[in-house]
Amino acid sequence: METDGSNVAGGDEIQELKSKIKLQGEKVRALKSLKTDQGTVDAEIATLLDLKKQLASITGEDGSAKSKSKFTLKTPKGTRDYNEKEMAIREKVFSTIVSVFKKHGAVTIDTPVFELKEILSGKYGEDSKLIYDLDDQGGEKCSLRYDLTVPFARFLAMNGSQYQNIKRYQIAKVYRRDQPAMTKGRMREFYQCDFDIAGVYDPMIADSEVVKIMCECLTALDIGEYIVKINHRKILDGIFQICGVPDASIRPISSAVDKLDKLPWEDVKKEMTEEKGLDPNIADRIGEYVKLKGNKELLDKLFLDQSLISNINAKTGLNDMVLLFKYLEIFGESKDGNQIVRKTKKDSDELDETTVGVGSIAAGGRYDNLVGMFVSNKKGNIPCVGVSIGVERVLSILLQKVALEQVKANEVEVYVMAVADGLLEDRMKICSELWDAGIKAEFMYKNKPKLQPQFSVCDRDQIPFAVIIGRDELNRGEVRIKDMRSKEQGEGGGASIKRSDMVNELKKRLGKA
Amino acid sequence: METDGSNVAGGDEIQELKSKIKLQGEKVRALKSLKTDQGTVDAEIATLLDLKKQLASITGEDGSAKSKSKFTLKTPKGTRDYNEKEMAIREKVFSTIVSVFKKHGAVTIDTPVFELKEILSGKYGEDSKLIYDLDDQGGEKCSLRYDLTVPFARFLAMNGSQYQNIKRYQIAKVYRRDQPAMTKGRMREFYQCDFDIAGVYDPMIADSEVVKIMCECLTALDIGEYIVKINHRKILDGIFQICGVPDASIRPISSAVDKLDKLPWEDVKKEMTEEKGLDPNIADRIGEYVKLKGNKELLDKLFLDQSLISNINAKTGLNDMVLLFKYLEIFGESKDGNQIVRKTKKDSDELDETTVGVGSIAAGGRYDNLVGMFVSNKKGNIPCVGVSIGVERVLSILLQKVALEQVKANEVEVYVMAVADGLLEDRMKICSELWDAGIKAEFMYKNKPKLQPQFSVCDRDQIPFAVIIGRDELNRGEVRIKDMRSKEQGEGGGASIKRSDMVNELKKRLGKA
Repeated sequence: METDGSNVAGGDEIQELKSKIKLQGEKVRALKSLKTDQGTVDAEIATLLDLKKQLASITGEDGSAKSKSKFTLKTPKGTRDYNEKEMAIREKVFSTIVSVFKKHGAVTIDTPVFELKEILSGKYGEDSKLIYDLDDQGGEKCSLRYDLTVPFARFLAMNGSQYQNIKRYQIAKVYRRDQPAMTKGRMREFYQCDFDIAGVYDPMIADSEVVKIMCECLTALDIGEYIVKINHRKILDGIFQICGVPDASIRPISSAVDKLDKLPWEDVKKEMTEEKGLDPNIADRIGEYVKLKGNKELLDKLFLDQSLISNINAKTGLNDMVLLFKYLEIFGESKDGNQIVRKTKKDSDELDETTVGVGSIAAGGRYDNLVGMFVSNKKGNIPCVGVSIGVERVLSILLQKVALEQVKANEVEVYVMAVADGLLEDRMKICSELWDAGIKAEFMYKNKPKLQPQFSVCDRDQIPFAVIIGRDELNRGEVRIKDMRSKEQGEGGGASIKRSDMVNELKKRLGKA
Repeated sequence: METDGSNVAGGDEIQELKSKIKLQGEKVRALKSLKTDQGTVDAEIATLLDLKKQLASITGEDGSAKSKSKFTLKTPKGTRDYNEKEMAIREKVFSTIVSVFKKHGAVTIDTPVFELKEILSGKYGEDSKLIYDLDDQGGEKCSLRYDLTVPFARFLAMNGSQYQNIKRYQIAKVYRRDQPAMTKGRMREFYQCDFDIAGVYDPMIADSEVVKIMCECLTALDIGEYIVKINHRKILDGIFQICGVPDASIRPISSAVDKLDKLPWEDVKKEMTEEKGLDPNIADRIGEYVKLKGNKELLDKLFLDQSLISNINAKTGLNDMVLLFKYLEIFGESKDGNQIVRKTKKDSDELDETTVGVGSIAAGGRYDNLVGMFVSNKKGNIPCVGVSIGVERVLSILLQKVALEQVKANEVEVYVMAVADGLLEDRMKICSELWDAGIKAEFMYKNKPKLQPQFSVCDRDQIPFAVIIGRDELNRGEVRIKDMRSKEQGEGGGASIKRSDMVNELKKRLGKA
């Protein structure tokens, strides 16, 4: 049971929060001193800040409990607001990603935020417990979408005859009831930017374009260096077979290998042998393979491994990888960063972000049988491959690079102000003319604003130009245009021009002429 | 209880659906012959189509029940997918609206799709029963947002010190558990495009800009003629007072007046007198006022009504209206279409879409006390005024005007194809060059595609240019560029140019040079 969201702030609750905060603070300090990875530390700091916020929300300035009549003013756990400056950055991220998607011919579709519960059932294994259900208020049982992949597969199954081939992107929020201690900074409501290619094609062509697109996005977003890890389910299957893993152990052993991103080999081996009863010799043989990392040269080396390429699964997987690397090279994306890493998921080729660990910002893979789960006729199945970019992680990287207070959130180009007498109606009239001309303009909603507050708005909102009017100038049919980025003319400055030339002059200065 | 979403399609269910469809068909025909308003008819047709869809989903081609093992493949009731062509139109609608909002200096914020249940409680009167709750899975009680106004007010209350003045827009989905018979075509998940101005300003300035913005949006969306109806709560209060409505009856009588958009005066009067016990003479006096419609001339006339302007509420309201009309005139929006219509809501000045009736596509108003409901200190209150545009209604108008099959959903500019031998790697290489140059390009994911299917893609997706390669031309260092919109050269046509000039030539033809 969670305790936040409670309406009543009693002394007990305050004491409990205070001791939680103390413990959490100690935990953060301990993790820092142990040089734990940044993602984990960030998550624990987030938890600490959340606790402090809860405390602040139920106590007054003197630390005593607030009036019980007011409830806690907050967003639900694991969700957050985005203010106008954060949104300005997020919109830039989205438009960067969308322009890459569109360059590759993608269209977009939209699906509802909730699906029939049975659509999502059986698609997420043990993570199904993280699905948000809607309350049973009569009628259908519904759940919030957990990702965009299952709804896309449902869409294809419903409309398959028209969508044998489609490249689609979808940028939308998904919902997961993760516990903060498990999520390591992950939100319960977060965006996914998905690009998927559905259809039957010749091998690895669509797969390589998906990788290419992901690389183009990450490069365009300018998030710094990144590594792309590529696996093939069949290679891992082959490795397990030649190492002698009994069929019944393949799933548990796969899930142990999955943890190699977060745990050292010793811990993974311990799980294989002590928890899951694998022969330690077999574990060591697996270890020889799964510890390997590399790029094309590793592929060449693995082809010399006779026992490996004598296995049909491994050989098929390795051949696919050769093709994929050749295509990536053509696409100019086969750099040192593209690593072959052997990983797997329980039920599919898919390498999704839940398995990649804290540091991953994008993940994808094939899901050749998902659409088939929704159709009775196997001919209705459509194989798919795609990638999902987690924009919250990208945002947090970008937000560290910019000074948020310097972000210009609104796009106002011209502020219309009066030097005296208010001149409200004249300011409104001029603004209206500017709007009609497609110029982004504002004025102060006061009958008689003082001069200084009007200048302050220009400063605060980084508005490049001001149109300044005074009674005498208006009578002469003139206005002044002032470049607010240059201060040389002082507050009274700016060039007087004919009122009838105002729009053209501003358009010229704004590069809109 | 609803019956859709059931897993099992029995013979009983099929019979039940068939008789429902028969009844609904009769209802639609009856409404049509009675010349009922189009909105109501459309809603009943939507219900009919929904029933037919349900039947189709549980029966095979021969009309018999499908296998019981497959569940119904559909989106939840009241929700729908948007395909790529519908999305292309929707995105154009959004970008049109956003560009108007930004021209007026708005920033955007984002809030979670669900809020703490207590945040929404008590904000929607009897409509609260339409709120979707999340299932109690432990932790906080949450509900899907019902509109964007209450979350914005919650945001302001939480961050008020930084947001004493803000113009913000938000375009996002909201959720209402309306019953189809009540909704008249309304969805349970639908978009709202909200623009709001928060802050303390001089009277009616922000209000008039809100009306101006709404008019600019509707004009830019090119939806045809529209009427803006404007009311003032205080005028209606004054009318009730001078007509002699007892204080205790003001709420019920207000709610009767609200129905004037949907019902004739006679029915409203009947509700006032027979159901709500109002003296018929008082009702008749109210009738004299609420039947009035008009623009500025009506205002002038009302000022001559001594009994009306002797009432302080009515006079205040009328003075505000004079100011509003003056400002709208300055903004160029005081045309014949701006009507003064006396309407009210129970608790506020707000004139929202639920009160305006089926035909309305946008609505707004003041909500001066909503933020104050979230703060303990009355000084934390921030008055607001805003407008909400219902994009589904706009979309349905626009979708009637366009031939959906002719909408170009993807933006591909160049299709790279081979005349023979497949030449996959060369096509990939050329595509990659085009992508690097910012040109939107595609190729077919086949090793050896035939020529005709490649041309078919160009036709289907209305791709303007093709780069056509053949082995001989590649050996000569040449490619052909073909304008796919002109057919004169035949399928083999197109101008041969040097491979090294390809990107520049395409950029020139695409107007990107």
